[in-house]
Amino acid sequence: MVVGILGGMGPAATADFYLKLVQATPATVDQEHLQVLMWSDPTIPDRTEALLTHGEDPTPALIAGARLLQQSGAALLAVPCNTAHAFLGAVQAEVDIPIIHMIEETANSIRRLSPNVHHVGLLSTTGTQKAGLYQTWLGTKDIQVLSPGLRSQENLVMASIRGIKAGTSGLSVRLQLTHAAQELIDAGAQAIIGGCTEVPVSLGAEDITVPFVDPARILAEAVVQRVLESA
Amino acid sequence: MVVGILGGMGPAATADFYLKLVQATPATVDQEHLQVLMWSDPTIPDRTEALLTHGEDPTPALIAGARLLQQSGAALLAVPCNTAHAFLGAVQAEVDIPIIHMIEETANSIRRLSPNVHHVGLLSTTGTQKAGLYQTWLGTKDIQVLSPGLRSQENLVMASIRGIKAGTSGLSVRLQLTHAAQELIDAGAQAIIGGCTEVPVSLGAEDITVPFVDPARILAEAVVQRVLESA
Repeated sequence: MVVGILGGMGPAATADFYLKLVQATPATVDQEHLQVLMWSDPTIPDRTEALLTHGEDPTPALIAGARLLQQSGAALLAVPCNTAHAFLGAVQAEVDIPIIHMIEETANSIRRLSPNVHHVGLLSTTGTQKAGLYQTWLGTKDIQVLSPGLRSQENLVMASIRGIKAGTSGLSVRLQLTHAAQELIDAGAQAIIGGCTEVPVSLGAEDITVPFVDPARILAEAVVQRVLESA
Repeated sequence: MVVGILGGMGPAATADFYLKLVQATPATVDQEHLQVLMWSDPTIPDRTEALLTHGEDPTPALIAGARLLQQSGAALLAVPCNTAHAFLGAVQAEVDIPIIHMIEETANSIRRLSPNVHHVGLLSTTGTQKAGLYQTWLGTKDIQVLSPGLRSQENLVMASIRGIKAGTSGLSVRLQLTHAAQELIDAGAQAIIGGCTEVPVSLGAEDITVPFVDPARILAEAVVQRVLESA
């Protein structure tokens, strides 16, 4: 079973996701690892701009990528970009292979946290916030999402995400994200979602005082589990 | 121009190579990055075993992967596995798109080191050593390759490479590789080639006292240059 990765949103996050997929695979030699076909297309129009300012719709490029992966042999798809999930319903309708849904898998994972979590902080793009992806999936589980204030969302979170996309993932980016996470913890968040695949590239569990939820790692583990179940 | 990566040899090294390709690309937003199609096939038979003990020939699987990437739109190929280069002549003959040759690019890069290098140490698989890949390409430039003794090659270098492939890239692996590098430096090596793509996953320039040559990084830079030239 060939795993398809529809990536490039952004490229560093895609590299990070593929590494997490390798690390999530129980293997002691190369030959026990998964066969992966990855289409990394960074030219896919910006997801947040499409959601916020009526920028170019990324859906056609996402569908083209998903079809390419299906035609080339992929049996399932992973899309390591949170914001892209706002468009995946239309993509799933155009391909015959399942897309493993990162937000759904993450919501299930948060539901299983012990002790139980009722308030979770979300560090994500403004597009993911506005699309309400986590709010929708977690709301059905009676978990409330806490979001940064407008100023922190723009000056700390989006600035960091743009910085990582620009290749400047230094200490300042990590401190900005840590600061944004702490504001959410102060507001009552019992866990923090690194809800943009760029975020865990810079921020880690060691930076915050509550559980850090990494949707990219959860997606990687879900993909591995799906492949092993089908074997 | 779509870049094709024929990887999976091993998977962690392929993730490392893709990250190096992203880092080598001059880009400030996602949309300036390269479109990449990656076929990561860890089931390709072990290259060193094929060279040393008449194990299964990896050439058919390499050709199948190269053809898949060409058919799916790749305009050039990078193969981030040093040992696989022993088989790439037969692969290049079966596809119409160029394979950027990592060993050739690395030899050119070493030739440009200043001050000039006449003796270079090679940390690689035993397969790469036996195939004489670096010896051939560097010999034409009057640069001599120093190789670990039999015991160090097996107990330090191959043990480390197997460890990284098994996911245990801890401090012990790094110390083993550092020790093997130091032996080569003591024998007169003026630079060290991390000549298996698993090696730079663990060993870095900060670990040794002479220049560290990373063929995966050189290949990434060569690919970026080729794409920019064609634009």
